[in-house]
Amino acid sequence: MRIVVALGGNALLKRGEPMTYDAQRTNVRIAAVALADLARAHQIIVAHGNGPQVGLLALQAASYAPQTLWPLDVLGAETEGMIGYLIEQELMNALPAGVECATLLTRVEVNRQDPAFDQPTKPIGPVYTAEEAKLVRAEHTWSMVSEPKGGLRRVVPSPLPQRILGLAAIKLLVEAGVCVICAGGGGIPVVRNDMGGMEGVEAVIDKDRTAALLAQDLKADALLMLTDVAAVMRDFGTPTEAAIRNTTPDTLDMMTFAAGSMGPKIAAANAFVRAGGALAGIGTLQDARAILEGRAGTQIRLDVAETRAKYAQPQQD
Amino acid sequence: MRIVVALGGNALLKRGEPMTYDAQRTNVRIAAVALADLARAHQIIVAHGNGPQVGLLALQAASYAPQTLWPLDVLGAETEGMIGYLIEQELMNALPAGVECATLLTRVEVNRQDPAFDQPTKPIGPVYTAEEAKLVRAEHTWSMVSEPKGGLRRVVPSPLPQRILGLAAIKLLVEAGVCVICAGGGGIPVVRNDMGGMEGVEAVIDKDRTAALLAQDLKADALLMLTDVAAVMRDFGTPTEAAIRNTTPDTLDMMTFAAGSMGPKIAAANAFVRAGGALAGIGTLQDARAILEGRAGTQIRLDVAETRAKYAQPQQD
Repeated sequence: MRIVVALGGNALLKRGEPMTYDAQRTNVRIAAVALADLARAHQIIVAHGNGPQVGLLALQAASYAPQTLWPLDVLGAETEGMIGYLIEQELMNALPAGVECATLLTRVEVNRQDPAFDQPTKPIGPVYTAEEAKLVRAEHTWSMVSEPKGGLRRVVPSPLPQRILGLAAIKLLVEAGVCVICAGGGGIPVVRNDMGGMEGVEAVIDKDRTAALLAQDLKADALLMLTDVAAVMRDFGTPTEAAIRNTTPDTLDMMTFAAGSMGPKIAAANAFVRAGGALAGIGTLQDARAILEGRAGTQIRLDVAETRAKYAQPQQD
Repeated sequence: MRIVVALGGNALLKRGEPMTYDAQRTNVRIAAVALADLARAHQIIVAHGNGPQVGLLALQAASYAPQTLWPLDVLGAETEGMIGYLIEQELMNALPAGVECATLLTRVEVNRQDPAFDQPTKPIGPVYTAEEAKLVRAEHTWSMVSEPKGGLRRVVPSPLPQRILGLAAIKLLVEAGVCVICAGGGGIPVVRNDMGGMEGVEAVIDKDRTAALLAQDLKADALLMLTDVAAVMRDFGTPTEAAIRNTTPDTLDMMTFAAGSMGPKIAAANAFVRAGGALAGIGTLQDARAILEGRAGTQIRLDVAETRAKYAQPQQD
């Protein structure tokens, strides 16, 4: 099987853990063992998140030179370098000799008309005091939101991925059997400019949505979204809470999920299987293989009977 | 012709210029015009330096969290993301539609026994006061040198590149006609560890030496090292100073060049042509095509007559 695996940024630099190299390398090593286990039986393409890392780089840059910030497309590209390198290294260390890996930078086109640009929702970078926020706002045209614990934080748009640039090179390598690591952080966000070229844009793209698009473009058999929760839960946080094992996009459409976390995963899963993908799976990194084999996590497939009924043509007699 | 082009990090973020995104993007755009001009007539593979950029990222990280620094291999990987992205974007903007580019992260193996590890020479990161240097030395086992303008600076080893990892993927793409950007900053330095795998090491690799190795591995016809000087100069800084146009490795071996700047370029040029490369060229970015055509810069070739004489077998009669 050909499988696109989307690794959560939080699986690589865990919530509450110090944001250090050692912590990240240890987590990448753990991830690599699970990925190598998959790669021995299947062809895998690895995408990954970058939430904690892009936040860290934004903090570092702001700390050194608050007046000359670097745009999010460039910071995103830096995280593709940082995380991609660590994944490639530890994955190759975990795989038998002779397996080739390649890590590609990936630009992803978004639409300048995407409504997300009018409604920035994704918090990024440092928390500012009211005083600092005033100065920052005089300098930049930023949207900011109040933080629960006080202070203000910049929010940026999270537009939908429209097109993966450099797909031809990814396909060439995948077809040749190379284990490709790409589309890190959902890809580097770019838009078409007035001269017909591409330019970076201040946004972050949801990595699960980009992974779904990549899986579709590569005609992958499965999309695995690996995170720090065991499965999609129904009635999350209530007495009737329970893990959902097998389900369909139509069933999930009737339920509500957290916008910032499970929501995009469900949307990505639904998009992939509705575009023809056989299986989308959600669960923990450690369960990767078990999710694929239906022994853990949540499996999302089109319900063949339901789908047939829905699209059935009236019979002629 | 197949040409490996090595772009100086200083050509992308110029000496004396502010270290900002705008400055870098402008410089990359200028570079892209010259590269696209080459790429229309030849197959190019682009390598690049990262001196100013890796210094900037080290400063940013140190400013935010002086106690938890990130190692040089990871900072190098970040610069491969940052610079590679900007080159790919502006190069594709400058090239006709339909040309494919791909930017690959590149790890380069160095030898743990390389004498450079005992003699760190490459300055990196912030300048510390004597007081700060004492604290830093208590924390890290760093070599430091006094700066001409006062203060102390960390120096790191610059070992020779031994092997380009992921060469198979680079070759696949190059053979398919994709314009490949790789080996940024001389590559991410790694060494073989006790478990038979690879791990990062605190070093920076000279990008011209890595570009020469890459050109050799790809059987390139030419290696072009583009920088901010017009040509290799004989008697530099003296009244008899003059540009060297056509020369040979044997001639260059008899001359002395600055260790930090022209020295590694000459060494890379000599290594490439001695390993069978037809031409190594050194000069400015703007002259790229003229250097290739012998109208500007310095051309280094084996002197065919000299070489024949040197390796001639005694004739049997």
